Amino acid sequence: MNDVARLAGVSRGTVSNYINGQNVRTASAAKIETAIKQLHYVPNASAKALKTNRSEYVVLIIPQVNTPFFANLSYAIQMALNQVGYKMILCNSNSEPKEELEYIEMAKAQKVAGIITMSYSEISDLIPADIPLVAIEKKVSDHFPLIVADNYAGGQLAAKQLIDSGAKNLLFASLAPVVNVSAQRQQGFIDYCITHQMSYTRCLAHNEQTILAEFKAFIQQHLHADQFEFDGIFADADEFAGDMWHLLLQQGIRIPQDVQIIGFDAAQVYPRQPIALASIRQPITQMAKLAVQYLTQRLPKNGESRRKYQPTIVPISFSAGLTTR
Amino acid sequence: MNDVARLAGVSRGTVSNYINGQNVRTASAAKIETAIKQLHYVPNASAKALKTNRSEYVVLIIPQVNTPFFANLSYAIQMALNQVGYKMILCNSNSEPKEELEYIEMAKAQKVAGIITMSYSEISDLIPADIPLVAIEKKVSDHFPLIVADNYAGGQLAAKQLIDSGAKNLLFASLAPVVNVSAQRQQGFIDYCITHQMSYTRCLAHNEQTILAEFKAFIQQHLHADQFEFDGIFADADEFAGDMWHLLLQQGIRIPQDVQIIGFDAAQVYPRQPIALASIRQPITQMAKLAVQYLTQRLPKNGESRRKYQPTIVPISFSAGLTTR
Repeated sequence: MNDVARLAGVSRGTVSNYINGQNVRTASAAKIETAIKQLHYVPNASAKALKTNRSEYVVLIIPQVNTPFFANLSYAIQMALNQVGYKMILCNSNSEPKEELEYIEMAKAQKVAGIITMSYSEISDLIPADIPLVAIEKKVSDHFPLIVADNYAGGQLAAKQLIDSGAKNLLFASLAPVVNVSAQRQQGFIDYCITHQMSYTRCLAHNEQTILAEFKAFIQQHLHADQFEFDGIFADADEFAGDMWHLLLQQGIRIPQDVQIIGFDAAQVYPRQPIALASIRQPITQMAKLAVQYLTQRLPKNGESRRKYQPTIVPISFSAGLTTR
Repeated sequence: MNDVARLAGVSRGTVSNYINGQNVRTASAAKIETAIKQLHYVPNASAKALKTNRSEYVVLIIPQVNTPFFANLSYAIQMALNQVGYKMILCNSNSEPKEELEYIEMAKAQKVAGIITMSYSEISDLIPADIPLVAIEKKVSDHFPLIVADNYAGGQLAAKQLIDSGAKNLLFASLAPVVNVSAQRQQGFIDYCITHQMSYTRCLAHNEQTILAEFKAFIQQHLHADQFEFDGIFADADEFAGDMWHLLLQQGIRIPQDVQIIGFDAAQVYPRQPIALASIRQPITQMAKLAVQYLTQRLPKNGESRRKYQPTIVPISFSAGLTTR
């Protein structure tokens, strides 16, 4: 910085002001710009962050990036942040409250510009209300914006699609306990069935490690003369829907002729093409853009943000695939 | 920091030294530690980075996180970095040289601790040899470590698996131009076929946007009386193998009875279970750990790192699935 000041013939303070985006005289700015180019000077971001008292980093806390939903969400959030000049620190919490808290502490220590979190731990007490934070799917507290898909409507839409395309015996497949957004998806599904006088059954696995075995046992219990008792399945995650698809195929059940299946998320495995599974689509890119927009809107309001937020509910839609008729 | 110094009864400089990991007297350290706890003081990372002249961030540059391979790689790298106290800035380049260069410039400006890159642009000229960088899959220059799977052996293994399980007419499916690691996978496959006197054909799509249509046209040209000319397919990416699987199923071809398919990567779509596709597995977690290990080993050697590196080639293996017999 001293070299730049010397070459530009201005004070070090003027160079510092210029770099930190404060007003300097037009003539000085031009001289500094020329000197910076000539010297290939790259301003030190740490110094800049110290001056402005916050960094250009945004922390994204998610359970695990290595699933299609979180991979697509992370991609969309980084792209949206990039457009407004922020960098994204990716934090996988593995759904461990301890890890989530460590990331929150880190974010505070780094004086990051903000946090976007999809966290299922009870962290609300640990976040000062003046730290810019946007929650996705799970509320942190009333003091932070929340963006969530219309999960209840998603459950209704899944039931409607299955019934409209001829299913008579419906099944809801998930992992117990059915809580948070899963509970809303289930409730939408059940309410639609009741309203339309359709019977439904639930197939719930009880251990994440044995989902395939539990689903398989359920299928075998409900197979009679090579016919499956149910002809329409709504799984509240694409992963479970895919499990059901493979397990039924292995039993010689035809999909979608004998049994139709609808999942939830419709997150593409590869960017190029839609998933083969019929599913309820969450508008991932829209949710990412909203999160970044809320975060940047909140930035100027630090310290005066005791206001309360209502959840922003974004609409879902049906994504057709090979598993419905 | 002033408050901590006052409460601990030491100078501000001593607190600063303590925070920056320099030696202070044991008695002072204990007092400072107590004061920090009492005041809930969080050291400002920007100030720390400025003092130590490098930050705790590592930049990861990949094409797009939203594919199973990159999602798993990003996850494994962040976990490995976390263990040694580094944070990961995730950068999706979309395979655009311009975006890659912007991320490199950003990394320099932020004085990050290092860069891990899987970049296919010509960026070697733009990186000073003393910036800690580790390349994955594609060499940046001789001055940076490179970690790459044994792609040639992977191509050989795919051919061997198909032939050993009875395939007689082999097909290699990919996207043209076949370059970089794809060229090595192809060469291993072809060499094995030639050595074992097996015929092989190539099916290459020429446009990323029309891969499905091009593969479909190829299949239709080589269908005779509902029989496909080929009975063993090696696709040099799981994505292409999945395309072939769906397209052949749509033509009524049975997989794996009529046609066997092997992909490349064997990256899980969900952490819980292996992919349904038979594939050549890249040891993603091992590659991630090696990258972080090389990066941290390189850190003390800044400025004296004009040494040249030989590539580190990690072994591949076969991952069985539903698409081979």
